[in-house]
Amino acid sequence: MKKLSAQILRDVIKPRPVNSFKGTFGKVTLVGGNQHFGGAIIMATTAAVYSGAGLVTTCTDRLNVGPLHANVPEAMFADFHDQQSLKNLISGVTSVVVGPGLGEDEQSQTILQMVFETIQPEQNLIIDGSAITMMAHQHITQPDAHVIYTPHQMEWQRLSGIKIADQEPAKNREVADQLKATVVLKRHHTQIYLTNGSTYELTIGTPAQAVGGMGDTLAGMVGGFTAQFHDNTDKAVLAAVYAHSAVAEEIAKKQYIVLPHQISHALPEFMARVASGQF
Amino acid sequence: MKKLSAQILRDVIKPRPVNSFKGTFGKVTLVGGNQHFGGAIIMATTAAVYSGAGLVTTCTDRLNVGPLHANVPEAMFADFHDQQSLKNLISGVTSVVVGPGLGEDEQSQTILQMVFETIQPEQNLIIDGSAITMMAHQHITQPDAHVIYTPHQMEWQRLSGIKIADQEPAKNREVADQLKATVVLKRHHTQIYLTNGSTYELTIGTPAQAVGGMGDTLAGMVGGFTAQFHDNTDKAVLAAVYAHSAVAEEIAKKQYIVLPHQISHALPEFMARVASGQF
Amino acid sequence: MKKLSAQILRDVIKPRPVNSFKGTFGKVTLVGGNQHFGGAIIMATTAAVYSGAGLVTTCTDRLNVGPLHANVPEAMFADFHDQQSLKNLISGVTSVVVGPGLGEDEQSQTILQMVFETIQPEQNLIIDGSAITMMAHQHITQPDAHVIYTPHQMEWQRLSGIKIADQEPAKNREVADQLKATVVLKRHHTQIYLTNGSTYELTIGTPAQAVGGMGDTLAGMVGGFTAQFHDNTDKAVLAAVYAHSAVAEEIAKKQYIVLPHQISHALPEFMARVASGQF
Amino acid sequence: MKKLSAQILRDVIKPRPVNSFKGTFGKVTLVGGNQHFGGAIIMATTAAVYSGAGLVTTCTDRLNVGPLHANVPEAMFADFHDQQSLKNLISGVTSVVVGPGLGEDEQSQTILQMVFETIQPEQNLIIDGSAITMMAHQHITQPDAHVIYTPHQMEWQRLSGIKIADQEPAKNREVADQLKATVVLKRHHTQIYLTNGSTYELTIGTPAQAVGGMGDTLAGMVGGFTAQFHDNTDKAVLAAVYAHSAVAEEIAKKQYIVLPHQISHALPEFMARVASGQF
Repeated sequence: MKKLSAQILRDVIKPRPVNSFKGTFGKVTLVGGNQHFGGAIIMATTAAVYSGAGLVTTCTDRLNVGPLHANVPEAMFADFHDQQSLKNLISGVTSVVVGPGLGEDEQSQTILQMVFETIQPEQNLIIDGSAITMMAHQHITQPDAHVIYTPHQMEWQRLSGIKIADQEPAKNREVADQLKATVVLKRHHTQIYLTNGSTYELTIGTPAQAVGGMGDTLAGMVGGFTAQFHDNTDKAVLAAVYAHSAVAEEIAKKQYIVLPHQISHALPEFMARVASGQF
Repeated sequence: MKKLSAQILRDVIKPRPVNSFKGTFGKVTLVGGNQHFGGAIIMATTAAVYSGAGLVTTCTDRLNVGPLHANVPEAMFADFHDQQSLKNLISGVTSVVVGPGLGEDEQSQTILQMVFETIQPEQNLIIDGSAITMMAHQHITQPDAHVIYTPHQMEWQRLSGIKIADQEPAKNREVADQLKATVVLKRHHTQIYLTNGSTYELTIGTPAQAVGGMGDTLAGMVGGFTAQFHDNTDKAVLAAVYAHSAVAEEIAKKQYIVLPHQISHALPEFMARVASGQF
Repeated sequence: MKKLSAQILRDVIKPRPVNSFKGTFGKVTLVGGNQHFGGAIIMATTAAVYSGAGLVTTCTDRLNVGPLHANVPEAMFADFHDQQSLKNLISGVTSVVVGPGLGEDEQSQTILQMVFETIQPEQNLIIDGSAITMMAHQHITQPDAHVIYTPHQMEWQRLSGIKIADQEPAKNREVADQLKATVVLKRHHTQIYLTNGSTYELTIGTPAQAVGGMGDTLAGMVGGFTAQFHDNTDKAVLAAVYAHSAVAEEIAKKQYIVLPHQISHALPEFMARVASGQF
Repeated sequence: MKKLSAQILRDVIKPRPVNSFKGTFGKVTLVGGNQHFGGAIIMATTAAVYSGAGLVTTCTDRLNVGPLHANVPEAMFADFHDQQSLKNLISGVTSVVVGPGLGEDEQSQTILQMVFETIQPEQNLIIDGSAITMMAHQHITQPDAHVIYTPHQMEWQRLSGIKIADQEPAKNREVADQLKATVVLKRHHTQIYLTNGSTYELTIGTPAQAVGGMGDTLAGMVGGFTAQFHDNTDKAVLAAVYAHSAVAEEIAKKQYIVLPHQISHALPEFMARVASGQF
């Protein structure tokens, strides 16, 4: 297993081309946030916007549109119960993030299936949280796309069938290979199983990150990075994972805990330091 | 009566274990915020989240979900009129906070009783504000749990039957013993009656704290601290009470009044100083 | 006409008594904010809370409760169409502010009349904006209370019958005496007509204050100051008027315009400097 | 084509006259923000308010009023489906901004036509985003007013019929002359075609601006500047365009991307530097 280093940030986050426009930096559509977990999709959206994706749309429950725009007016909104809107907003975007706060009831399942039916092979599909659990529990088949799972260990157990205590790199790799998907396994030292056979381990991070919503923020960042840095999806995923904890470490120098939204808000300044060689 | 000192902070707020996850730091469910007093439960929730609880859910009136997530997307939401949700969200969490902005009408009473029926002996139950008043006025029996009351003097009069002018330590202690509950009696010098017979007095604090919502913030902090520092509930309560006024004193050096939400927002930085030996 | 000076701040804003609680600092109820002008009552509420009033309640259209609590969770809410709530929330409070964003339609008129019927002689009643216009247009009689009008020149023309060009101090004084009310006439150099016959002129201020919502903020501050510094209502009004422009002047040193909410947010720090002799 | 320089800021943004009031600085009404794109009109409104317009009203979908006031309580609100309100709020204001987040469905079209029917020849009318597209697709005639278009290149293609690859200055000028309108053509180096025959090119700016919502912010600034600096509309437009990128450049020194709302929030401080000769 390779150790992920700050070099990945420098490989990925480069000065933006002078003659670029928002289309250059990709589009992200995020799907999640039922009536109970609106905060999750808001945090994921904030992460995608502050990561630097060109255009960000959030498909969520109508109940969440007010606080979504109070937090991040830069995002667009659609009601995720409106199947036509959902389809339109998935078609053609660079990256789709599904799962943060989606829930696991019948309506959530319908939405998840609609996403899976619409996604195309060339698109990135980040599958997070309850979307992973529903796939496992409802035996929903993974669609044909560049799939990136971001499970914590229990979600990975549900999806892979490997019990937490048995989640050894070799076993995880086997399932990742079967899935033909990238797996970002969130744990004390997060592991990233790429589809090219490489496995990376994250050795930075802080217990100050052990706060609800931290994973939603990571999923949003993976969405934002894969959209913006679309030339190399693998590297974009690795950079998102590394940046998430690197920013948290910086904040944790002065804080006992790190609020997830604080990581997103710190990204533009952090990424500028990387791009200008100061990190 | 013992004088509470900054030592309690150093006893409680220690560097987080390196290999920890959000489950390590407990779960808090807050119940309150009717259509009039939504701000109270928002302030209590903000306090619980910024204290460092692992997972925080807020059961409140549906009217409040927008501003809740605008203020603190890190919290989850349930409608407190949905009895099944309420039960599920109380079951298994470390600490339940009931009362901030709950109101005193029939619906509030139904919700309070549902909380009391569901709570289990091993759980912490912080009873604040109108929940205390309803218990007194409606003769609602205290449930079997680690109960922590956070009354101001009038609420304590209602609950204990001791008139404000007669609230002497010996009398307060007698009622606290009968209740087998911790009592945080908010007054000029707040007194904490622990169930082990010890009584503490808080000698810090500032009149800049005399602002509506200050008690809601304290209740949320007690929820957050007892969940996160669950090894020793007594010490967690004492530390929450001390930290609340210590942070306020720091802010009051530069402000004529302290807004309750400012205390919560200052907690992560304050707690870092404690954990690293700088306070 | 006397020139208002910074001395008024030092006369009014003193260190808070050590043994005080939120009841010490009065209660304010604000009434306004129809479906079009919700921002006005939010800004007035923010001003009252950040001024340091002990308890603040906002009676407004239900549409505004979300952004109210997103901006200032410290305030409580009631629907101003609920007449019983409105009456209860006016009874017994120190200061009532009516008018910011109230509008002038039939419903606004009903609400205004309900306020006027409920207010008692010993209470402060700040009448602002559309409430002044409705009094003039609908011939609504001023109730028996400590009335403080905060008109701009056109509103004063409507109420007093004195055309803007003719608004000379002697004429204004005559009408103020007839009204037995304090008049804060907002103009280039704001004039304050007290009921004791004294008239003051404000000679500070900045054109950076010429922004919509500035008057709503002043009305909220007059509410907050008269509640908190209730020993001397006249001085509290003068101090609020002076502080409003003194803070604006400080902000305008670095800003081309001053946003009304920025004045409120700066108050706690500004008032601390006054109370500690640094202004 | 003339090169736009910082001199335009110094020509336009001067110290405010001492004896001024909010009426001095004009009124802006913004029309846009359907149920999907509420953030767009919120960002445009924020820009108009922070630019320093005297009074700002936002006509949008009712769904957006909460986050509008959470972001910017200084703005007033009307439901854009209420035709009478819409007409009243367009009549008499200095500048109308139509388009940000308006959408392109039948309801959007009805609203656009209502704006066009109500606008008067002496008013400024900024036409942005979907309003431009609807004019092109639905063959809606430009009304008689001081029209300022703010298209990106695809929108300009739709309106002018000139394909992006063929958008040469001479061709653009020809269409601008036919339209008798100012055209702010947003592109790598934005071009401004004034009605007096002059054409300007913006040579500053940064790829950090390539973020969704950047154009909504510019449209709001053009609204705010033309209202406030109404003596010379041409110069006001040029100054808004220049300031938008000058502020972005400053922020981009420390950030990888610039969030649109950050430009608005930075304006009061930036404009103060210009007015005091420090820029």
